[in-house]
Amino acid sequence: MTRDILQEVLQKIKPSKEERELVERIKGELLGLVREEIERAGLEVKPYFVGSLAKDTYLAGDHDIDLFLAFPLDVPLNELKEEGFKLAEAIGKRLDSYEKAYAEHPYISGKYKGFDVDLVPCYDVNSWREVRTAVDRSILHNRWVLKHLNGRNDEVRLLKRFFKGINVYGSEIYVKGFSGYLTELLIIQSGSFLDVLKSADFMHRKKIIDPEGWLKKERERALKTIEREKEAPLIVLDPVDPRRNVASALSWEKFARFYFKARDFLEKPSIEFFFPKEPQAADYRELIQRKGTHLLVLLFEKPSFIDDVLLPQLEKSARGLWKAVEKAGFNVYDANWGYGEKAFIMLEVEGLERPKIKVHPGPEFYTSRGLNFYKKHDMVWVRGRNLFSEKHQKSYIVDVIIDLLEKNQVSLGRNLRDAIKEADILVDFVPPGLKREAYLFLSKKKWNLK
Amino acid sequence: MTRDILQEVLQKIKPSKEERELVERIKGELLGLVREEIERAGLEVKPYFVGSLAKDTYLAGDHDIDLFLAFPLDVPLNELKEEGFKLAEAIGKRLDSYEKAYAEHPYISGKYKGFDVDLVPCYDVNSWREVRTAVDRSILHNRWVLKHLNGRNDEVRLLKRFFKGINVYGSEIYVKGFSGYLTELLIIQSGSFLDVLKSADFMHRKKIIDPEGWLKKERERALKTIEREKEAPLIVLDPVDPRRNVASALSWEKFARFYFKARDFLEKPSIEFFFPKEPQAADYRELIQRKGTHLLVLLFEKPSFIDDVLLPQLEKSARGLWKAVEKAGFNVYDANWGYGEKAFIMLEVEGLERPKIKVHPGPEFYTSRGLNFYKKHDMVWVRGRNLFSEKHQKSYIVDVIIDLLEKNQVSLGRNLRDAIKEADILVDFVPPGLKREAYLFLSKKKWNLK
Repeated sequence: MTRDILQEVLQKIKPSKEERELVERIKGELLGLVREEIERAGLEVKPYFVGSLAKDTYLAGDHDIDLFLAFPLDVPLNELKEEGFKLAEAIGKRLDSYEKAYAEHPYISGKYKGFDVDLVPCYDVNSWREVRTAVDRSILHNRWVLKHLNGRNDEVRLLKRFFKGINVYGSEIYVKGFSGYLTELLIIQSGSFLDVLKSADFMHRKKIIDPEGWLKKERERALKTIEREKEAPLIVLDPVDPRRNVASALSWEKFARFYFKARDFLEKPSIEFFFPKEPQAADYRELIQRKGTHLLVLLFEKPSFIDDVLLPQLEKSARGLWKAVEKAGFNVYDANWGYGEKAFIMLEVEGLERPKIKVHPGPEFYTSRGLNFYKKHDMVWVRGRNLFSEKHQKSYIVDVIIDLLEKNQVSLGRNLRDAIKEADILVDFVPPGLKREAYLFLSKKKWNLK
Repeated sequence: MTRDILQEVLQKIKPSKEERELVERIKGELLGLVREEIERAGLEVKPYFVGSLAKDTYLAGDHDIDLFLAFPLDVPLNELKEEGFKLAEAIGKRLDSYEKAYAEHPYISGKYKGFDVDLVPCYDVNSWREVRTAVDRSILHNRWVLKHLNGRNDEVRLLKRFFKGINVYGSEIYVKGFSGYLTELLIIQSGSFLDVLKSADFMHRKKIIDPEGWLKKERERALKTIEREKEAPLIVLDPVDPRRNVASALSWEKFARFYFKARDFLEKPSIEFFFPKEPQAADYRELIQRKGTHLLVLLFEKPSFIDDVLLPQLEKSARGLWKAVEKAGFNVYDANWGYGEKAFIMLEVEGLERPKIKVHPGPEFYTSRGLNFYKKHDMVWVRGRNLFSEKHQKSYIVDVIIDLLEKNQVSLGRNLRDAIKEADILVDFVPPGLKREAYLFLSKKKWNLK
């Protein structure tokens, strides 16, 4: 039964013979181009394919090519950045299209015959002791996985697809899930897809995975890493670098999803774990009625940043808004953010009006500030040792938010400030394109584990 | 100017020659009765008049006679209670009417020719070291005041009337203001009515008043009292007992009223401080509209207890209700309590509805309780390490309160429980007799210092 399901999944996700041949041909063509440009530039650079295509752990149709341009260690960093980018750009010009992109240092992101190609300058390191830029480790990762995977590539594919299906795949800051490399390490450690699922609970309790045995070979460094990462749900000491937890981006929420879904799959296996049905949405307005809460939506122009920049700033802004609105006296139940044509922040709030008058706490009565407070207010009283008075205030939540934004009293993502200040503020209403999102948010189906 | 005002006040509050003669005649008649009954019972008991009538510090028309029946110290306490009450009752039978009353031990409260008469058994003590029951000290108080007052009786009357006018007079638990004895001590200490007012700020800063010099004569005991009372707004070491703070019942609120009113009177004297106009009330429903809050009233049968019992229990019940309603998810702004024909508790609340659905926090996901929680709920999600779910709940505040009362989840005054469970719960509406009260409460005029 389980075996049949896994077979059925593999048929969908394992690249066909034709796809493999295509990938190999494209890689060959790219390598030719790259070598020509290296020679033309007269550089001593080695090209490496890294990532899932290089390790043969990619899913069918998933064609991101990572081509690393490795410079000798004796090249100074600024020279690597400059010459490396020039070289990448020269290669980029021979692709179908390309653009400049940024990580720790600039690289080229291009397209070639339908494939996404990243051309990334780095150092040609042989050990963690030589690592100088954030990307250098990729070559070591690639090498380690190829050495230890022992033909369990399809097990990696199954786990990757499972992670995608239950929505925990990706180590991006706005995902906080399992990276591709982490997926490979879990298979290498446990042996198979099913073994990883079976070990979910044990994994959490033991918490430390150490495939390279750093706790023996580099005990001090390994213990330091463990100490630093002790609040993480899982610690996987990077086999190529004892200073690093491969699972450091993994959140408790995503680990919990995996924890329950692994258990559920083993109890009642189904292909839906890998290819889930879209959750069914209903009328969000009817839901608002039923819950007795209210939906507040800020709708604004989406600045043209990549998700890695935009989504964390949206999260920061949503949390800032939550905090500011709550401080202003409204109960906020939950927040949601994202973008379609426009960017949005949603808040679920208890009420839309706060009282028109608010109690204003004053100083202790027997101080000189107390005397001023007493003189200043017509209506003033004492509770305990403190004076109190009443203050008029805006009541409607939309007026309050406009006020807070105007007075810069909301902590917002740096690149979103201007856009959010111009936001449309909608109450219990969303544009047609967000109806589904609103329903999934308000119904909690967006986060439902089941 | 000030002198004229004080003269005007004195004309109203100082007993006339006729009133004095009446008081003396009545005291004489009572003393005759009491001596006959003591003789008839064959007891060795001395009668003492105590209180403001005995000290000649009473206000015109204020005719409460305290007649203490002092037993020798060698009488055992249970005998004093029994024989003392018998004697008091025998005297009571010769009054116009009487009833049994309770303090630390039973006494008789009666009426005689329009005067209220309390007949209280006690010990005939000569020093604080001999005090055995709570009432024994009264004889010592009386003696000390008579010895030190030196004709400043009218100054006491002025201060007493001032305290009444600004609503800080009385040491009852439901008043927490200045007692008659404390008023007398303040005059003895400062010299005059105006001197007491001028010393209000200094009084608070110095904080300790020690008319008998206990800090020299009984330093250890006095320091112990001061340490125990250090959170009180004022410490007045009882001249007849270093273990006692005469001002221990005084609350910060009442002291603050005195603090500001004394200042105001000195700045702008007026007879209104002594005889304030009733605050003007307006339409409470219009006020509710304007404030944007709501008024909740529990109206119930008033049990026939004296204020000393009833009012603290009403306060306890109001605070209990406040806490329970807030815990249930409603914002409560203020509470009020009291009685007319019926007893009432009022709450000012932000809204009348809470959401129909509430977020229900669950255990950490990786525990066995976590697994049960996950299995039990259809909609379940993770934040941090904890599981959450949603729960349906009653929304309308009246339904919620009825529920809380039925489930005994409100801390109520012991003797009010049954009555409050049967209370009518009114929303934004009060019976005609409470309109004024509702307005004064919601407008804060009830507590306004001005």
